[in-house]
Amino acid sequence: MKENTRQKLINATYEEVYSNGYQGAALADILTKAGVHKGSMYYFFANKKEMALSAIQEKMSERFDMLYLSITKDEDNYLQKLFDLLRDTSRRDFSRGCPLANLVQEMSNLDEDFNQALQKIYNKFREVVRLIYDKAVENKELVACDTDKLSLFSIIVLEGALLSVKGSGNIQDYTDAVEMLIEYIKNI
Amino acid sequence: MKENTRQKLINATYEEVYSNGYQGAALADILTKAGVHKGSMYYFFANKKEMALSAIQEKMSERFDMLYLSITKDEDNYLQKLFDLLRDTSRRDFSRGCPLANLVQEMSNLDEDFNQALQKIYNKFREVVRLIYDKAVENKELVACDTDKLSLFSIIVLEGALLSVKGSGNIQDYTDAVEMLIEYIKNI
Repeated sequence: MKENTRQKLINATYEEVYSNGYQGAALADILTKAGVHKGSMYYFFANKKEMALSAIQEKMSERFDMLYLSITKDEDNYLQKLFDLLRDTSRRDFSRGCPLANLVQEMSNLDEDFNQALQKIYNKFREVVRLIYDKAVENKELVACDTDKLSLFSIIVLEGALLSVKGSGNIQDYTDAVEMLIEYIKNI
Repeated sequence: MKENTRQKLINATYEEVYSNGYQGAALADILTKAGVHKGSMYYFFANKKEMALSAIQEKMSERFDMLYLSITKDEDNYLQKLFDLLRDTSRRDFSRGCPLANLVQEMSNLDEDFNQALQKIYNKFREVVRLIYDKAVENKELVACDTDKLSLFSIIVLEGALLSVKGSGNIQDYTDAVEMLIEYIKNI
């Protein structure tokens, strides 16, 4: 029951912050969305900031595990599964963009706690993608290469492409960029 | 004299919006920075929004012309000059990031006038970079290819790399991404 209330708060916080940014997310709206009273919130979190930091860390980590880390648990076709995932536009919320990039843009220069938390999340993402490339090298799907840099480049293309769609309104920008990234990886 | 006042307003608005975002840029601070009275401002602009839209359109356009379009006016070495420009970290303000990307993140979903203006600026940037690649193809520095897509990919890598540095605090992310982009272009 208590865990359930906490999870409702985490989910509602994540959604409100994703839609409106951290500064634009009103605590009252989060509580209404979660269906939780303020008093109950204080049982789990000291304030909006602590709740927001927990929410983004837990939800982003969950998303990385579900989408990316799960690929490394398979037996083979690591590279193809990553390509399929990158190509799958149905998993992307193009109008809201990338929750991580949005917060980096909004908060990295404003608040050191956010800066630290976002760096940790960003590094975790980079590590998970590197793991996929390491598995692909091990399985001879990819020649030995600097998988850490390749992971960096992949995330940069992904983030840049999501931003481009936000700017242009054209999902084709994302699709084109992903195909060029895949072409780059296949030519390594 | 009048043009001078207008230019002071444009410059101050651009700087304040770049540092604090559009919503965070206070009109009073802009006027103080410009050393212009509010009454004089109304001679040129109806309000803060009109002034901000003019500022970003004029200043970004100026920047594209100075850095990128100027390359197309030369006789040769188009590709090398673009690579030199991308590699030149001294021209980048890594802590503030890309002024265009910042505004796309902040305003594209909030205000249709900003959305339209930012799309125009973004398309202009893409067109200027494409022109460099077209010149490079014409001059046999680059094999014939889809220069529009290549321009898109280049801007996506650039924007993604600037975001990555904002997130990680590590300028090496930018340098690594630019080298991988250059490697990709050289292998076309």
